[in-house]
Amino acid sequence: MKRKLRMGMVGGGLTSLIGPIHRKAAGIDGEIELVCGAFSVVPGESKATGESLYLNPKRVYENYQEMFEAEKNMPPDQKIDFVTVVTPNHVHFGPSKMALENGFHVLVEKPISFNLDEALELKKLVADTGLVLGLAHTYTGYPLVKEARRMVADGKFGKIRKVYVEYPQGWLSTMLEGKGNMQASWRTDPKQSGMGGAIGDIGTHAANLAEYITGNKITEICAMLNTVVPGRMLDDDSSMLLRFDNGASGVLFATQVAAGEENNLNIRIYGEKGGLEWRQEEPNTMILKWLDKPKEIIRAGQGYLSDDAKGFTRTPPGHPEGYLEAFANIYRAFTKALREYEPGKKIDVAKYDFPGVDDGVHGMAFVQTAVKSSKSAEKWTKLD
Amino acid sequence: MKRKLRMGMVGGGLTSLIGPIHRKAAGIDGEIELVCGAFSVVPGESKATGESLYLNPKRVYENYQEMFEAEKNMPPDQKIDFVTVVTPNHVHFGPSKMALENGFHVLVEKPISFNLDEALELKKLVADTGLVLGLAHTYTGYPLVKEARRMVADGKFGKIRKVYVEYPQGWLSTMLEGKGNMQASWRTDPKQSGMGGAIGDIGTHAANLAEYITGNKITEICAMLNTVVPGRMLDDDSSMLLRFDNGASGVLFATQVAAGEENNLNIRIYGEKGGLEWRQEEPNTMILKWLDKPKEIIRAGQGYLSDDAKGFTRTPPGHPEGYLEAFANIYRAFTKALREYEPGKKIDVAKYDFPGVDDGVHGMAFVQTAVKSSKSAEKWTKLD
Amino acid sequence: MKRKLRMGMVGGGLTSLIGPIHRKAAGIDGEIELVCGAFSVVPGESKATGESLYLNPKRVYENYQEMFEAEKNMPPDQKIDFVTVVTPNHVHFGPSKMALENGFHVLVEKPISFNLDEALELKKLVADTGLVLGLAHTYTGYPLVKEARRMVADGKFGKIRKVYVEYPQGWLSTMLEGKGNMQASWRTDPKQSGMGGAIGDIGTHAANLAEYITGNKITEICAMLNTVVPGRMLDDDSSMLLRFDNGASGVLFATQVAAGEENNLNIRIYGEKGGLEWRQEEPNTMILKWLDKPKEIIRAGQGYLSDDAKGFTRTPPGHPEGYLEAFANIYRAFTKALREYEPGKKIDVAKYDFPGVDDGVHGMAFVQTAVKSSKSAEKWTKLD
Amino acid sequence: MKRKLRMGMVGGGLTSLIGPIHRKAAGIDGEIELVCGAFSVVPGESKATGESLYLNPKRVYENYQEMFEAEKNMPPDQKIDFVTVVTPNHVHFGPSKMALENGFHVLVEKPISFNLDEALELKKLVADTGLVLGLAHTYTGYPLVKEARRMVADGKFGKIRKVYVEYPQGWLSTMLEGKGNMQASWRTDPKQSGMGGAIGDIGTHAANLAEYITGNKITEICAMLNTVVPGRMLDDDSSMLLRFDNGASGVLFATQVAAGEENNLNIRIYGEKGGLEWRQEEPNTMILKWLDKPKEIIRAGQGYLSDDAKGFTRTPPGHPEGYLEAFANIYRAFTKALREYEPGKKIDVAKYDFPGVDDGVHGMAFVQTAVKSSKSAEKWTKLD
Repeated sequence: MKRKLRMGMVGGGLTSLIGPIHRKAAGIDGEIELVCGAFSVVPGESKATGESLYLNPKRVYENYQEMFEAEKNMPPDQKIDFVTVVTPNHVHFGPSKMALENGFHVLVEKPISFNLDEALELKKLVADTGLVLGLAHTYTGYPLVKEARRMVADGKFGKIRKVYVEYPQGWLSTMLEGKGNMQASWRTDPKQSGMGGAIGDIGTHAANLAEYITGNKITEICAMLNTVVPGRMLDDDSSMLLRFDNGASGVLFATQVAAGEENNLNIRIYGEKGGLEWRQEEPNTMILKWLDKPKEIIRAGQGYLSDDAKGFTRTPPGHPEGYLEAFANIYRAFTKALREYEPGKKIDVAKYDFPGVDDGVHGMAFVQTAVKSSKSAEKWTKLD
Repeated sequence: MKRKLRMGMVGGGLTSLIGPIHRKAAGIDGEIELVCGAFSVVPGESKATGESLYLNPKRVYENYQEMFEAEKNMPPDQKIDFVTVVTPNHVHFGPSKMALENGFHVLVEKPISFNLDEALELKKLVADTGLVLGLAHTYTGYPLVKEARRMVADGKFGKIRKVYVEYPQGWLSTMLEGKGNMQASWRTDPKQSGMGGAIGDIGTHAANLAEYITGNKITEICAMLNTVVPGRMLDDDSSMLLRFDNGASGVLFATQVAAGEENNLNIRIYGEKGGLEWRQEEPNTMILKWLDKPKEIIRAGQGYLSDDAKGFTRTPPGHPEGYLEAFANIYRAFTKALREYEPGKKIDVAKYDFPGVDDGVHGMAFVQTAVKSSKSAEKWTKLD
Repeated sequence: MKRKLRMGMVGGGLTSLIGPIHRKAAGIDGEIELVCGAFSVVPGESKATGESLYLNPKRVYENYQEMFEAEKNMPPDQKIDFVTVVTPNHVHFGPSKMALENGFHVLVEKPISFNLDEALELKKLVADTGLVLGLAHTYTGYPLVKEARRMVADGKFGKIRKVYVEYPQGWLSTMLEGKGNMQASWRTDPKQSGMGGAIGDIGTHAANLAEYITGNKITEICAMLNTVVPGRMLDDDSSMLLRFDNGASGVLFATQVAAGEENNLNIRIYGEKGGLEWRQEEPNTMILKWLDKPKEIIRAGQGYLSDDAKGFTRTPPGHPEGYLEAFANIYRAFTKALREYEPGKKIDVAKYDFPGVDDGVHGMAFVQTAVKSSKSAEKWTKLD
Repeated sequence: MKRKLRMGMVGGGLTSLIGPIHRKAAGIDGEIELVCGAFSVVPGESKATGESLYLNPKRVYENYQEMFEAEKNMPPDQKIDFVTVVTPNHVHFGPSKMALENGFHVLVEKPISFNLDEALELKKLVADTGLVLGLAHTYTGYPLVKEARRMVADGKFGKIRKVYVEYPQGWLSTMLEGKGNMQASWRTDPKQSGMGGAIGDIGTHAANLAEYITGNKITEICAMLNTVVPGRMLDDDSSMLLRFDNGASGVLFATQVAAGEENNLNIRIYGEKGGLEWRQEEPNTMILKWLDKPKEIIRAGQGYLSDDAKGFTRTPPGHPEGYLEAFANIYRAFTKALREYEPGKKIDVAKYDFPGVDDGVHGMAFVQTAVKSSKSAEKWTKLD
């Protein structure tokens, strides 16, 4: 396919935070072209967004239903290849489903859906259609996260024993949702966000990161979810003890009331022989720790990294890459899969190294289990 | 009292780790003179230790009983003022009790005793004799820990909401106690160490630090204690969810199997308006975090610190102080109390700012509760 | 102009390091479209590059002369707006000159030319044509560099007294140019690189950064240039003492033989009341230092920053931006200027905040003066 | 010698900064006993100081002449073994000379004397008497500095090429000496401090550190000394280019007007294969850099260090040591030499690893050469 892939977008209007980030990330590698969108259901906003993006006005739609109706009939040399869904959580399912039903691949923001049932329905649709669904678990897009996964898989640290994963943010330390902050408003509203607040918004990223790097699954959790800011409708703070399927244990916390923190996702893992430490805010550095020798500092872009990491780097060492590039790596892997897609061929997301529908289903189960555990007087709750 | 205070020591023989540290710490400020000791019950070792310390051989004893018998009859211008107890945990109680019964003040290594009952007995003895008992919770001796406590008390961060305290070490990642390592051997032996392994050895430091800085008490815990290294007799790993008496919650973990970690005690606290972060391994720096303004880096020795911190610093800013100086601060505060001691006068340890018998009792209760919680299928266990 | 700007590229073929970086940076904001290029003079390579970029083969040229001849006659709705020149140093002048002569704006890699005379000729051409020339001094594209400049200009630190700027790299620690490394080969070849090796390649970035942030000009230098690796044809190491026009003094060093360093450009500035510290490898953090109060950590993306910085950020705090985004900021400012360009209107690069032809001329003078100073037995050499 | 060494002190009265630091450092290891002193020539201050130190009033003197007269006639079991000289610079020579002439070893604060001539006279006296003279170049007392020296000597980094050593302080950013600050007053007074201000006070430490670690001597310097704060009588800022005897080159700067800096002595060294980085303010960590493999973090106290470092550590890894311990290491090495001293035996300071009279002489030559170079219009000035 000697052309750029054509992308449509659902959501991502003028007030969207994540929409522009998707567009920028998709634009970095020069493999994707945004050609249409249904950016907002606020009257006029979709059109205005399309104009600001220099899109053909004919392909700027008022809603996603209209978009898919029109796009499915486009001639093959204009038709979109896939759609990116960047709406609030409660509108992830609808456009994803309709896209798949109309023959379009999907890249959907995380969480995959509003609840577990929807996620399972999408899983079935993916299986039935054979189309590709990618999930924007951005943080596994960082090259050093991939290196970490590689090192664990290669047994560099021996059997993994302990996992500490944290996601402190501070931006919801006050009642922002009462002050017209759009991001705060929908994220703390159970009707738009789902059953989880902080646990769904960022706790899922933490759990996903831990499972991605270790290659182990969380099997039991003991959770405490809190609503720290009075009047808030969902949890804004969570902590939990974890047990993994390989016998390791750990701690996860995700909070949005850690005043003064920005977006400090970080993870520490320890095995029999050593461990690692990585922080998203300085993503190009990872510390390795060893039993009887000096710690090491490994750095993105270096020649000594594995191919798993090297395939997701754009600059030489010391020329920092960031969040947009991690995001672009999701698109890079997703795009590569799409270029190799053929009807009837089964695309294995693990081969291309991007999160897919199974990660989405598991994430929804994680949130549901955390909420259940938090309400339980029993210590441990199983996560299937 | 225009003279140095006279100190005796129980424990601290040639193979001791903590004995020399106490002696060095006690020597820094020039206020204390070591004049006698019962350093070891290994035949000959006490004598050899005394010689290496240039002590008068007549005041080097074979065991603590002999020492107190002899010292209580010394003339007032030679008699010790206090005794430092630096034996393994199961020998904390005996010499401390005998010292108090014979009129000597006591500074005892942590934990105060082998179990809660002993701790309560010491508490009663302190009350009955009016003598001073100090406890070597070294880490609260750091000037910036005192600054942190001051800032919380002054409401700088608003109401405290979250407390994350961690104590990862890695030195017990392998079965060291099987290889002749003395430190590992007694610390992992329930007969010498008590009912807690890592939770007692270092978990207590973490809990003490959290309560010291916040001024709040832990009221409920949900603990998972593990024995990670096969064959070990006590826990070498612990994690727990915490609830505090002011409504705050948090996480504590203390582990000795975090391969590659040294002695990485650290704490993060968040309130309504901001928070703080401090790491024992770089103790002269503390990060303050704020809702809507830049983080700040405060540094030991600086003029902008409170008197609480300034009273425990010996060098100008940028001339780092460390662990021995934190230890020396326990001695500094303890010594100051002793200089102001008079029979019949009640010495309030809080005024001098050193840990005392109540901290010791609380520490033993913490360990006992953690062990109980870990065995329980119920989520929360109360800590009284 | 309700459309993307159309860009042509000279250089940037399959083996180019900087070509893909320019293309990615130009693609991030969705304001620029690459439509043509003369990517290489190696037979077939330009064509292959164009294919890999999904370009119309008719607009992929064998050399820049051919490109400008063809493009100047394109219809207005297809014609490029500007050209990006990313060839080795000795081929900066030719295409830049021809572009200007044919009515195209130019964004040229740094250094602007092979020698000072060429730079002065470009300056004249820019003045004569009124067209816009931007220079890729990437590192001033970082938001916190802009914040630093703003803070100095606002007098936050008082009069600036000391400037320490460093650019250590280690990649030329061995004789790479003898081993088929293309980047090393042309950069150490005086016929392609110019009279300066490390001083031209990276020393100019350091000098530019110091002058950009302080708003002061270097007036005198005392330089030591060394060729550390035997057999190398140009300097690979430089250090110099500096005097600035405001009375400040400082030190600059730029070396490519600092084994183990990546791309560690950094600067520290001190004034009467405080100072700042910034490192390119962690570009989203800047440390502020003050006479009598705690250091502060300011972070990219934060609300407390000035508009100068905010205008060049794409993500919320804690979502790191990097080198490509700094590069994209040069394009962002340059693009904005082009959108406001009209024939006859004078575009002031300072208003849009991107480096222009004057910076290019000054950079060439800096290199020439450093080389002269290094050969002189006199301490100080003036930089005009 | 089965006893503590007996120390006398000259200087170190109630307002002294460095006196108490010497006393604390000397007290840490329990090998030294302060028994007499002439602490101040301010009437009454010596006596008051002696009282605060619980000294025998009979051995507290009004001045050093009186002290040496009395002490030389003390019985052998009371007589001091050595004297520590901690007066302002212009009073280093007198007591050191008199001590040597009366048979006492000397440990003198740095710089060894007021000028080079005095230093040379002390050198001759040491040679003539065979007594031991130690110099308090504290910063070479840190264990990781010793490790750095060992690694360079062992060729771990290959031939050393570049040395960057810096000593920024900020405390003299304002005219403190006009405001009753005793430390500022004598240090900026040429009659008390000598011909160098910052260059003598801290520049010498930087030069000493560079030469100690590399084992190379500075042979040529090109210096710029500035008096930045108007009205100051000596330089408060210095920078220089360096050439070493092995062909390496480098940069040294030492300034006391880097507003907001504390005591940020640091050094970076690069050889053919790698390099190192060490900062005094976090002295227990050193970064190693390598050509083609990850950086390493080495830490004080670790088992993987060389014996050179291990011999100067008191605590396990992760229990930080600081400035007082570095200082105590000078005393440890000096004390060890004294214990092995016999009349007629030549003590080699290098064997014990503490700075001696030759370092003192070289330091004075360094200051003199820097001042000369700064006044010269020639680029390079030789340092013999």
